[in-house]
Amino acid sequence: MEFKPGKVFLMRAPEGVDLLEFVNSFAEKNGINTAIVKGIGSLRNPVVGYYSEETKSYKKIELVGTFELLTLLGNISIKDGKPFAHLHVTLGNANGDVFGGHLIKGAVFVAEVFIQELLGEPLERKKQENGLVLWDSEGI
Amino acid sequence: MEFKPGKVFLMRAPEGVDLLEFVNSFAEKNGINTAIVKGIGSLRNPVVGYYSEETKSYKKIELVGTFELLTLLGNISIKDGKPFAHLHVTLGNANGDVFGGHLIKGAVFVAEVFIQELLGEPLERKKQENGLVLWDSEGI
Amino acid sequence: MEFKPGKVFLMRAPEGVDLLEFVNSFAEKNGINTAIVKGIGSLRNPVVGYYSEETKSYKKIELVGTFELLTLLGNISIKDGKPFAHLHVTLGNANGDVFGGHLIKGAVFVAEVFIQELLGEPLERKKQENGLVLWDSEGI
Repeated sequence: MEFKPGKVFLMRAPEGVDLLEFVNSFAEKNGINTAIVKGIGSLRNPVVGYYSEETKSYKKIELVGTFELLTLLGNISIKDGKPFAHLHVTLGNANGDVFGGHLIKGAVFVAEVFIQELLGEPLERKKQENGLVLWDSEGI
Repeated sequence: MEFKPGKVFLMRAPEGVDLLEFVNSFAEKNGINTAIVKGIGSLRNPVVGYYSEETKSYKKIELVGTFELLTLLGNISIKDGKPFAHLHVTLGNANGDVFGGHLIKGAVFVAEVFIQELLGEPLERKKQENGLVLWDSEGI
Repeated sequence: MEFKPGKVFLMRAPEGVDLLEFVNSFAEKNGINTAIVKGIGSLRNPVVGYYSEETKSYKKIELVGTFELLTLLGNISIKDGKPFAHLHVTLGNANGDVFGGHLIKGAVFVAEVFIQELLGEPLERKKQENGLVLWDSEGI
């Protein structure tokens, strides 16, 4: 689906907040319904998910300690009538090893977040045939 | 090289298609010659490449199973007269371990793809002195 | 903080230069004070950092060999009166294993770099209460 660029934000999320909650609440307060989200920083005790096709559910992976946030990447669209952030992360430890998944939780030590709002028709997550809550897919 | 922003697309690639082919064919159908590409999702049996300076060729790394697509990042430019996507990926497994490389192949389970078209002079890949097919480099 | 989009650059950094120095010097030459930076490519002997909350310093991780640059992600803002790039990287080896951290050093084999300038109030790094040199944080 095609969009027009809207507002652009670059900011530091406050230390101690949950990163996912911060992005969702920022979107709600600023009336952002569709956006691209990116960022870097450092997260404490992040919890990420791996979606299993077999069990049709997220396996939770709890990481202990402070990790470099190497990539925060995802989007905001509408789910159940309000802005909903879908974010994936990669995280580095003190040895440079990298872990990652779907962001479930993670306290901000440092987070420099970029949000590019997109303007256009509402992009909405709906229950799809594979059980997941996704946008309608693009034609091929 | 400097560009002007063009069209902006955010969409879900259909389940089952090859992600690289989807991006290339989307670019061709929409007349996109230059772009930035980003995305997240989940890929089945991705194949990634590692370019070896010694052998001057890509080593193929075949990953088995379904992986969280933590980052899809790259660009579209012109190669052999048509749009060509150069994409790198990071991929997470059920333990949160991360693998990655140059995207060669990978079937979409879920792929939320953002494409920012860039308008300007053609950006073309040509055989360079190091044997790779690259854009002319920026002056220092 | 809200910004307006400025100039947009997509280019190849020359082989052999240090990637971080290239971005900083490109920003300075082009008068870019605030920007989003992204890229992919391949780096030789990258050195990345992990910031330890305990020691309040960066641990250096020296990686030997040539690595696929899977993600270069970060920003440019003002520090000590001039443009300063804060960049994180993920890097893949010949087995597809991924390493990463805060980019300290790394010689370009290939680097395709995208810079999106942002226009607005100066975004400045200052010594914060946690000892790090960061932007003032967004209100919650």
